[in-house]
Amino acid sequence: MKVWILGGDGFCGWPTTLHLSSKGHDVTILDNLSRRQIDILLEVQSLTPIAPLSVRLKTWKSISGKKIGFELINIADEYDKLVDLLKIHKPDAIVHFAEQRSAPYSMKTPVTKRYTVDNNVNATHNLLCAIVDSGVNTHVVHLGTMGVYGYGWSGSAPIPEGYLTVTLDTPDGQLEREILHPANPGSVYHMTKTLDQLMFAFYAKNDHIRITDLHQGIVWGTQTPETILDEKLINRFDYDGDYGTVLNRFLMEAAIGHSLTVHGSGGQTRAFIHIRDTVRCIELAIKHPPQPGDKPRIFNQVTETFKVKQLADLVAQLTKAKICYLANPRNEAAENELIVENNQFLSLGLDPTTLNDGLLEEVRDIAERYKDRIDRSKIAAKTLWNKK
Amino acid sequence: MKVWILGGDGFCGWPTTLHLSSKGHDVTILDNLSRRQIDILLEVQSLTPIAPLSVRLKTWKSISGKKIGFELINIADEYDKLVDLLKIHKPDAIVHFAEQRSAPYSMKTPVTKRYTVDNNVNATHNLLCAIVDSGVNTHVVHLGTMGVYGYGWSGSAPIPEGYLTVTLDTPDGQLEREILHPANPGSVYHMTKTLDQLMFAFYAKNDHIRITDLHQGIVWGTQTPETILDEKLINRFDYDGDYGTVLNRFLMEAAIGHSLTVHGSGGQTRAFIHIRDTVRCIELAIKHPPQPGDKPRIFNQVTETFKVKQLADLVAQLTKAKICYLANPRNEAAENELIVENNQFLSLGLDPTTLNDGLLEEVRDIAERYKDRIDRSKIAAKTLWNKK
Repeated sequence: MKVWILGGDGFCGWPTTLHLSSKGHDVTILDNLSRRQIDILLEVQSLTPIAPLSVRLKTWKSISGKKIGFELINIADEYDKLVDLLKIHKPDAIVHFAEQRSAPYSMKTPVTKRYTVDNNVNATHNLLCAIVDSGVNTHVVHLGTMGVYGYGWSGSAPIPEGYLTVTLDTPDGQLEREILHPANPGSVYHMTKTLDQLMFAFYAKNDHIRITDLHQGIVWGTQTPETILDEKLINRFDYDGDYGTVLNRFLMEAAIGHSLTVHGSGGQTRAFIHIRDTVRCIELAIKHPPQPGDKPRIFNQVTETFKVKQLADLVAQLTKAKICYLANPRNEAAENELIVENNQFLSLGLDPTTLNDGLLEEVRDIAERYKDRIDRSKIAAKTLWNKK
Repeated sequence: MKVWILGGDGFCGWPTTLHLSSKGHDVTILDNLSRRQIDILLEVQSLTPIAPLSVRLKTWKSISGKKIGFELINIADEYDKLVDLLKIHKPDAIVHFAEQRSAPYSMKTPVTKRYTVDNNVNATHNLLCAIVDSGVNTHVVHLGTMGVYGYGWSGSAPIPEGYLTVTLDTPDGQLEREILHPANPGSVYHMTKTLDQLMFAFYAKNDHIRITDLHQGIVWGTQTPETILDEKLINRFDYDGDYGTVLNRFLMEAAIGHSLTVHGSGGQTRAFIHIRDTVRCIELAIKHPPQPGDKPRIFNQVTETFKVKQLADLVAQLTKAKICYLANPRNEAAENELIVENNQFLSLGLDPTTLNDGLLEEVRDIAERYKDRIDRSKIAAKTLWNKK
């Protein structure tokens, strides 16, 4: 299958690219290298030493014998080039990771708020518009987020996979309607993913574009069976206050003898997935496209849920680190429960990597191994959610 | 009260500007004159001869003695200027009309689809971000559309004013939740207004911005008590296939002896409001702001509903015109019912102008009077909704 990976140089995009290439797909990356450029502006870098993209691609070619294409393009801006490439390549599937994906970064300054909205909305809309414009028959697989649902909205009811059935009282009796799950985003970043959903719904209805939206939890883990083959293929590991996700930050803190910094009570429950499962889910989604005219297919791409303090306890047990509680810069509930339906991927054969299976590897092979690269000044989470 | 009108040179913006000025408010228009520029590109013009903005403002000053300010600015693009102006003016209320507002134009070409999304999303988001950034305490009154609800979704149940209460079944019993009414937009333009809603909900929650969203029906009528005072104050009357709304198009067709062109069966029911009521509703909304921390207040800004063929019949009766049925270029239901709740504005004292009160005036004082300015080549609605 001919597959495009928009944002194929990023944290989820790169291992997905290698996984699909290893499975025999003809893969091309479209990327503007924005993730590397944001690193420069924030004066941070991945804990793992990531090679330039051309080195990554050459290394993969020499190891696997497989060629991965690359087009340097900003899809939020270079529309005509996007249409030309679509007409030439005619990809069977397009995996869309080409969005600014940090919630703290999206709340940092007016510049980063506006960049996140402008980039994410125009990237998605340009893609949809270009597919209609070019007439190419393709399937869009988009990386959404569990954050579109918010936390705690449905009480003890599990979060369904994208849609909710509601009953309306009318003068002629009750009507059942299936609706997109109400949006409750907690940051400008999460908000953009709720905007994406409405654009997907419209283009699926009006133009019969085939779309799958994957509402992913927080990704943990660094390596996949392909990225581990050579250090020049290694995946990103972000630990800074903006791009570092909670588990990576605990691992890095433990490695350098810093206390594990829990923001708030640690009672926030979040959904998680290992990067190895992310790439498998993407492949499963590509293999099971919706039909033209269907509404977007939505999967919850999560395997486990944990409270933040449970994660801290797990890392503390493995590493003997201490835990320290700080004020929470985010505008979020102190405590929430979270039950998530994820039957679709399980029924398609996903066999999840659990935290108990993979955590030691992260401690030993990533955090300990690269701890000399840590910049301690980048640990603190400084972005505030609002002025109050 | 100090009031900004974003898009104050447009069809709704101009009469709103004059109405608020006449009521004693200190009004400033912010506009990039994009509506006049689109006329140039489409090679059409308002049936009524609209004066340049500086002439409009001078005329108003000489008639009323009141000064209206003007800032030439593209709020979707000139963010820093917007923040500077906010800090200087500190408006008490900001009426936001600064969006591309034609559904057919938003479906016309990839360029117009992309312009509509980019302009409307960035205009709204820049405004919200700039309010937070500047720290100005103001109230945003935004012109939404009935089209966010779609047509026919709720069967015989009336469309509520923005929010719907749903019941969730949970293991611990039933939970009631108030949700934003599900979005069912019928064009890229309408879709942008559903994106606006989610941005409003987020900024109201996270930053306690006070926001009122007005889901307006199709506006008919041309003049208000202020625009009628001098021909140089006259409001726009659009009749072309993209910007002309259904009633204006019938009036113009009747005036030149053309058949009234009904697209589809004419069974589409739509909600209407006279421009005189629009400007009154805006004033009522400004006078009744929500509190900081409230969710956006949503009003349905409509006064009557009609089927398209009922409108054609009314115009035909008054003018002796014939009716001709054409294929429908839009992707919409052939027939729908529409019942709309509009109690909030009625309870605040709105006394609607009905079609029976105002239609003759439109025939006599607008369509008949200016019929020599009609360009017959611009009557046909040529924009197709999709490639099927």
